[in-house]
Amino acid sequence: MEMKLPGQEGFEASSTPTNVSAGELDSDLGPGPGHSPDGPSATESKELGVPKDPLLFIQLNELLGWPQALEWRETGSSSPSRLLDMGEMPPITLSTHLHCRWVLFEEKLEMAAGRWSAPHVPTLALPSLQKLRSLLAEGLVLLDCPAQSLLELVEQVTRVESLSPELRGQLQALLLQRPQHYKTTGTRPCWGSTHSRKASDDEEAPLREQRQNPLRQKLPPGAEAGTVLSGELGFLAQPLGAFVRLRDPVVLGSLTEVSLPSRFFCLLLGPPMLGKGYHEMARAAAVLLSDPQFQWSVRRASNLHDVLAALDAFLEEVTVLPPGRWDPTARIPPPKCLPSQHKRLPSQQREIKGPAVPCLTSAEDRHRHDPHTPSPELQRTGRLFGGLFQDVRRKAPWYPSDFLDALHLQCFSAVLYIYLATVTNAITFGGLLGDATDGAQGVMESFLGTAVAGAAFCLMAGQPLTILSSTGPVLVFERLLFSFSRDYSLDYLPFRLWVGIWVATFCLVLVATEASVLVRYFTRFTEEGFCALISLIFIYDAVGKMLNLAHTYPIQKAGSSAYGCLCQYPGPGGNESQWTRTRPKDRDDILSMDLGLINASLLPPPECTRQGGHPRGPGCHTVPDIAFFSLLLFLTSFFFAMALKCIKTSRFLPSVVRRGLSDFSSVLAILLGCGLDAFLGLATPKLMVPREFKPTLPGRGWLVSPFGANRWWWSVAAALPALLLSILIFMDQQITAVILNRVEYRLKGAGFHLDLFCVAMLMLLTSVLGLPWYVSATVISLAHMDSLRRESRACAPGELPNFLGIREQRLTGLVVFILTGVSIFLAPVLKFIPMPVLYGIFLYMGVAALSSIQFTKRVKLLLMPAKHQPDLLLLRHVPLTRVHLFTAIQLACLGLLWIIKSTPAAIIFPLMLLGLVGVRKALERVFSPQELLWLDELMPEEERSIPEKGLESEHSFSGNDSEDSELMYRPKAPEINISVN
Amino acid sequence: MEMKLPGQEGFEASSTPTNVSAGELDSDLGPGPGHSPDGPSATESKELGVPKDPLLFIQLNELLGWPQALEWRETGSSSPSRLLDMGEMPPITLSTHLHCRWVLFEEKLEMAAGRWSAPHVPTLALPSLQKLRSLLAEGLVLLDCPAQSLLELVEQVTRVESLSPELRGQLQALLLQRPQHYKTTGTRPCWGSTHSRKASDDEEAPLREQRQNPLRQKLPPGAEAGTVLSGELGFLAQPLGAFVRLRDPVVLGSLTEVSLPSRFFCLLLGPPMLGKGYHEMARAAAVLLSDPQFQWSVRRASNLHDVLAALDAFLEEVTVLPPGRWDPTARIPPPKCLPSQHKRLPSQQREIKGPAVPCLTSAEDRHRHDPHTPSPELQRTGRLFGGLFQDVRRKAPWYPSDFLDALHLQCFSAVLYIYLATVTNAITFGGLLGDATDGAQGVMESFLGTAVAGAAFCLMAGQPLTILSSTGPVLVFERLLFSFSRDYSLDYLPFRLWVGIWVATFCLVLVATEASVLVRYFTRFTEEGFCALISLIFIYDAVGKMLNLAHTYPIQKAGSSAYGCLCQYPGPGGNESQWTRTRPKDRDDILSMDLGLINASLLPPPECTRQGGHPRGPGCHTVPDIAFFSLLLFLTSFFFAMALKCIKTSRFLPSVVRRGLSDFSSVLAILLGCGLDAFLGLATPKLMVPREFKPTLPGRGWLVSPFGANRWWWSVAAALPALLLSILIFMDQQITAVILNRVEYRLKGAGFHLDLFCVAMLMLLTSVLGLPWYVSATVISLAHMDSLRRESRACAPGELPNFLGIREQRLTGLVVFILTGVSIFLAPVLKFIPMPVLYGIFLYMGVAALSSIQFTKRVKLLLMPAKHQPDLLLLRHVPLTRVHLFTAIQLACLGLLWIIKSTPAAIIFPLMLLGLVGVRKALERVFSPQELLWLDELMPEEERSIPEKGLESEHSFSGNDSEDSELMYRPKAPEINISVN
Repeated sequence: MEMKLPGQEGFEASSTPTNVSAGELDSDLGPGPGHSPDGPSATESKELGVPKDPLLFIQLNELLGWPQALEWRETGSSSPSRLLDMGEMPPITLSTHLHCRWVLFEEKLEMAAGRWSAPHVPTLALPSLQKLRSLLAEGLVLLDCPAQSLLELVEQVTRVESLSPELRGQLQALLLQRPQHYKTTGTRPCWGSTHSRKASDDEEAPLREQRQNPLRQKLPPGAEAGTVLSGELGFLAQPLGAFVRLRDPVVLGSLTEVSLPSRFFCLLLGPPMLGKGYHEMARAAAVLLSDPQFQWSVRRASNLHDVLAALDAFLEEVTVLPPGRWDPTARIPPPKCLPSQHKRLPSQQREIKGPAVPCLTSAEDRHRHDPHTPSPELQRTGRLFGGLFQDVRRKAPWYPSDFLDALHLQCFSAVLYIYLATVTNAITFGGLLGDATDGAQGVMESFLGTAVAGAAFCLMAGQPLTILSSTGPVLVFERLLFSFSRDYSLDYLPFRLWVGIWVATFCLVLVATEASVLVRYFTRFTEEGFCALISLIFIYDAVGKMLNLAHTYPIQKAGSSAYGCLCQYPGPGGNESQWTRTRPKDRDDILSMDLGLINASLLPPPECTRQGGHPRGPGCHTVPDIAFFSLLLFLTSFFFAMALKCIKTSRFLPSVVRRGLSDFSSVLAILLGCGLDAFLGLATPKLMVPREFKPTLPGRGWLVSPFGANRWWWSVAAALPALLLSILIFMDQQITAVILNRVEYRLKGAGFHLDLFCVAMLMLLTSVLGLPWYVSATVISLAHMDSLRRESRACAPGELPNFLGIREQRLTGLVVFILTGVSIFLAPVLKFIPMPVLYGIFLYMGVAALSSIQFTKRVKLLLMPAKHQPDLLLLRHVPLTRVHLFTAIQLACLGLLWIIKSTPAAIIFPLMLLGLVGVRKALERVFSPQELLWLDELMPEEERSIPEKGLESEHSFSGNDSEDSELMYRPKAPEINISVN
Repeated sequence: MEMKLPGQEGFEASSTPTNVSAGELDSDLGPGPGHSPDGPSATESKELGVPKDPLLFIQLNELLGWPQALEWRETGSSSPSRLLDMGEMPPITLSTHLHCRWVLFEEKLEMAAGRWSAPHVPTLALPSLQKLRSLLAEGLVLLDCPAQSLLELVEQVTRVESLSPELRGQLQALLLQRPQHYKTTGTRPCWGSTHSRKASDDEEAPLREQRQNPLRQKLPPGAEAGTVLSGELGFLAQPLGAFVRLRDPVVLGSLTEVSLPSRFFCLLLGPPMLGKGYHEMARAAAVLLSDPQFQWSVRRASNLHDVLAALDAFLEEVTVLPPGRWDPTARIPPPKCLPSQHKRLPSQQREIKGPAVPCLTSAEDRHRHDPHTPSPELQRTGRLFGGLFQDVRRKAPWYPSDFLDALHLQCFSAVLYIYLATVTNAITFGGLLGDATDGAQGVMESFLGTAVAGAAFCLMAGQPLTILSSTGPVLVFERLLFSFSRDYSLDYLPFRLWVGIWVATFCLVLVATEASVLVRYFTRFTEEGFCALISLIFIYDAVGKMLNLAHTYPIQKAGSSAYGCLCQYPGPGGNESQWTRTRPKDRDDILSMDLGLINASLLPPPECTRQGGHPRGPGCHTVPDIAFFSLLLFLTSFFFAMALKCIKTSRFLPSVVRRGLSDFSSVLAILLGCGLDAFLGLATPKLMVPREFKPTLPGRGWLVSPFGANRWWWSVAAALPALLLSILIFMDQQITAVILNRVEYRLKGAGFHLDLFCVAMLMLLTSVLGLPWYVSATVISLAHMDSLRRESRACAPGELPNFLGIREQRLTGLVVFILTGVSIFLAPVLKFIPMPVLYGIFLYMGVAALSSIQFTKRVKLLLMPAKHQPDLLLLRHVPLTRVHLFTAIQLACLGLLWIIKSTPAAIIFPLMLLGLVGVRKALERVFSPQELLWLDELMPEEERSIPEKGLESEHSFSGNDSEDSELMYRPKAPEINISVN
């Protein structure tokens, strides 16, 4: 069928691909438009500066009424609209219904349910695409149509020869009628029910609806609309296909669901045919328009030939699923990660519409960029303190903006969140430190130290978003140091002061020698060994402390000897008046009868002591029920915190609430524990807090005396533990810093040397004041960054928001730590916190950290039959036996570290952690670089040893394109909770 | 390129679709072969009796060596095989590698990892299919090639004009070389590693490997193989495509990975080209061959034209995914449910290869078949006891086979499993019943009753796989009946006897009047209301009993008055010798000093009583630590049972172990609880068990006296509670029976009336003996059936096993109940079971039952934002507000039932449950039948009120094929744990 368009100058209306007239309509497209994307010409590169193509919203309207109208009218759901009287037909109701829509993914209007379906990947039938192609080839293609309203557009579109004037009029009337956009809330048209929707006669209503559409807010400004209209019309003798690109996008009345200027219009009408021909063709057209590359091409197409070429290019790239193995009606959820459109789009368009979800993972950064081009912050200058000076030079220009950038509402909520997390941390670690050092440190020190060190770091550091904390490894070391000093009867705090002085010195040496560049030798193997050991110590300690409680408060078995207690008053012969005074009312009958003559009563021990008596008997020192209640508190806080953490990914509650619950899981778990404890009022062991603002250790001032009771030479001997602690601090600080300064966070630039310098200085300060030691904490710092991330707000259904960057500034941190300092006066409230609750949080931290590392995932693989293992990319590239061997070696290392930790030589464990780097180096003799690339990552030497070609050859050997992109899609390496906090 | 085949008579080798010669090669195909599946001719229907087409195993081998060989050789992973000296080329290594395989889904050999990938839906690029089509059209197509060996085949395939004799020789040598089938265990070829695989020179090795391939065991007998061979060969000037169907399938040496006779062979070679052309073409060919319809067509094709037509038919049906929205390298896991191939395959082939997963769900059965054709078992005869007689007549012929069918090893494991489950049930329900009736019933009665009633039912019932149990609703009623009789100071067991007699009478009336046909009025609404109420009562009771324990064993707060206890000996003045005799050794110092002169000691109360003293003091009646320890036991057994139940769907452990753990979750949880209790040795409340085989109630024989201490007219008054109980029994029994006799279980036929008759008779028996009352239990009966299911063992990767039926017989049940009877002598061991553990299991049962019903899922929807709701079919068809309204009505009904249950009129709750049927009827005025179809199911009257056309019109309106099949795919309705056991 060939359709001619009478009286249409200036428009492209070719009926065959060979008969084209191009070039005269391209006024708005710049010097080099109309090239198919396969061969972008040199002129197109001039367009690099043009604005991006706008986002396209596409909707599919369907004409219903022929031949279904008779049936459909029966169902009572089509609203009465204007009737068309058409020749031999009875007067029937015709109406246009919105059916599907696309921004990135397809959404289908569930008519009966009156709601939009979840966004899904559109699937098409191949014949419908082919039929569409031939209909377009024979039909009307108007590029740069100057129509300014729906009326003009409809007139243009219906001016085809094959239509008689009468038919044309009918068709125009039909096309001009207002489409029915279902409101997806409240009442809906229900088949056969009594609740059929009443169409509002108010002419303004649809426009209002259109403007109020919630999708409008989500689409970015400048978005354009495309409409595809399909239907079967009995009065048409031949199919009628039209594709229109409007020269200037105009709002076409209430044609589109969302009030957007329309750019494309596609009409696919024809006589009734078998199946759902026109509907599927229209879907195909809509899916084509929603394809970025087709869209790009068709915006620049100058003639029908270009349009068809774009369609053919689309067909070249489609993925085909065989019919017998895939249910074509299944809805595929939007993939988490899409292939980059870079390969598909011509060069100057590469920035226009990236993948729905950016897939630049840390793994890619690490494996593609890092090994070959180490980040500039970690390049050795070769001069003394060269790295430090360079860091200062790099960060200084940003300093003003580090305060100005904080002027945003988001910073307030970030402050609240991080403040609560910091205070929780201060309480937990303070309490545990007090526990571990018999009160040499405590909650008071923790609050003061966190505030002072944190604020100072925020003001000076290279990475101001970092939150300092008394982290897991340092806590473990402090515990060991304390028991060491107890073994040698040392005055702890003065000895600790000298350790701190030495550590600061060693760290300065590390800064001077630019040792931070060695951080590249800390591969995932080292990081995870580090993290796993600390996590296991946390778990072991938490459980150990609970078992200790069971010793302190023994369980009273039936018939056990720890039963019975009397309150004896001093002096023989008794004291009748004292007895009478102290006897409780309700015990009169028993006591007066049996004990009236002796100087004893059944008062509980504390009461007895207060009355001047002595509790005597084996049961006096046991407090019943405490052990089991403590266990219950411990388990409750642990499981509650775990459950709250998991709620983040559940389907319940709005995401804001879920996120809040998950973010504040520790705080809420502590509150729940305190509530339970207060409700039952049992004498559980509580957090020890001084009654006023003074050091926890009675009798010391805030300044630690330099020697105390220790011999002078202990200050020299302190260098040895200080060396160990320096290793620990260096590893902990630098591993965290690498994680925080990942390229994909788009920060202003790292300052590894400057950060370490600050940590060294603060080490000195906190040692002098007898406060806990601080290094960067991974988890809370990441949470800080996360709470300040900037994201593109407008996002299409099914699309994840785009990450734009992080509001990097020094103010939020500063405010958080000032608030923490002020909170010292809240300390008296803290004495209501039961210790078992803190142990539960301690266990939670250990378990959460352990479960976040890849090592744990591989240990789990040991327990899974090969058939049920998840489809990890790792397992696609490394034989299972080799994976298991690697895991077994890690387990053996961990076992060895644990043994060392259990011996009296436990304090040397930082040296052993460093030894992991050596073990990792030795693994190069057991595993190929290729295997290590997947199991771990490469060390600097190995990178050079892998020829670039070698990497490629594996890919070409594997014989499938899929491999090329696998490294690209390698999932983001889990964030290592190295600090366990 | 046209290739001629010299000297090949009897084979089809056409180069264009028009130049075909057909018909002479069809000797093995019967009278009407070669028709394309689009139009199966009448002659084909004659073939209905022919055997099914065999399953096809397809593998893709790839020739590597040109041009990658140079690169590849460097990597050291290709094994040295025979060298080909080819003209200008240097001598290079060429080898054939297995690459992918297909049975139903695609598996890719992960070369580096040396393992097969998980099965996934194959995806193709459209151009590769089109290129394949043109290569086949120009290439060599041999249908019914008589080759008997690989050598003959290769000779046939290479006899094309375009090849020079020299080239032909080289090619033949290449094709004859042994392909490398990677062993997927142990060592593997690793890129760049030192572990390159040494090819075994033993010529027998590959054949042995081939036979030992584990896939062989999975494929059904008669399976055939197809091989696709692709590669780029530099010495070829033109592409070489050949497609061969062997006349007689023969094992072609070690060509295929699995030793199967080959039927198809496809060769796709050519000069190097851009991209992965040949590889992708070969994949396309393999996927085509794995398509059931293409396979069917090509097995019957008589010429090239037929093959190409089949390919075109395949293309017509493919699903297309747009390039920008789908990552073509993503692997799609096999769908749970595939569209039926019925529509695609010609009629006589419909039984040959069904969908990978049978999708005939119960929902389909219920909604498509049941409403319009009620099952014959539930059709009213209109005669008195007509249904019962019909049931007996239907079941009688099966009676001998009901014993003979048990002769299978599977029955042994079923007996073990069901025995343990039954005993656990007997203990739990016996214990709870004893708890509820103050020992009028108990564990001893439960064991005896279960054994007697269960065995009798197995021998007589209509559905012999049913396991009788004292289920939740009956337990709840018995508890209410007991408190009723206590309120009126009745002698419980005689009163209960009369209730039982009346119930049996009423049930006989129900049998006589064929009331079971009314079961169709019990829609999901009623069933779920029933189940939810009972579950909630379970949960409430379990928690309530735990709180009661806290009253019995109060918590001792610090300073509380319940402190102190003395052991006082009778008579004033004391008794020195008695004191000396009873004083414990380690208390000497205290007691001799303070209490030596009075007749009291600090002995624990039980010890004191045993010594003849009286414990005196407020603390004597408190047992410390019991309350919290009981709570711990309760929580432990509950969470442990829940966790074990969930382990079934985890990835850990082999599925046999997981299934075992999940099946025995209750038993294991009880054992864990007992172990914990025994370990700590606290005096927790334990299950009461008589020391010998006698009724729990002291002083009664096994026969209940007909009146006891009650007035005679109570035996008449018992008719009223009996009426209520009859309703309950009827509902519980029949709802369970409907679930157990679902059509898709393919049982020998139901006997609803006979079952109810048996229940009535057993009711009489158990009442006379004072045993618990029994009805069919849903969960355990389903478990019984599940443990006896027959499945097709041979299944392709990614395919779920086919369900073949259930070994329906009476022997397993009989043995189980005989064993249960014998287990009465185990009873003394049961006194070590702590009650809190049983309460935990009780809670677990309630929670498990509650979470299994659709109502709970809808309640959860209330808490989910619409955006995060799962894509339930329900939500596609019913507006959310209507779904919520329905849920709210159900919640209101439940609330009303709960209120009634809490009043003194609680005993009438069965009547209220029946009232749910009325509420459901009234809902027809609020909801349309269409909505009720999705939210519930239809009642008999409604079915008639929906015109068949109406149902269809919704489907056509929704405008997409997908709707047609949605009802088909509607997921299996959750099994209703109506019995809560």
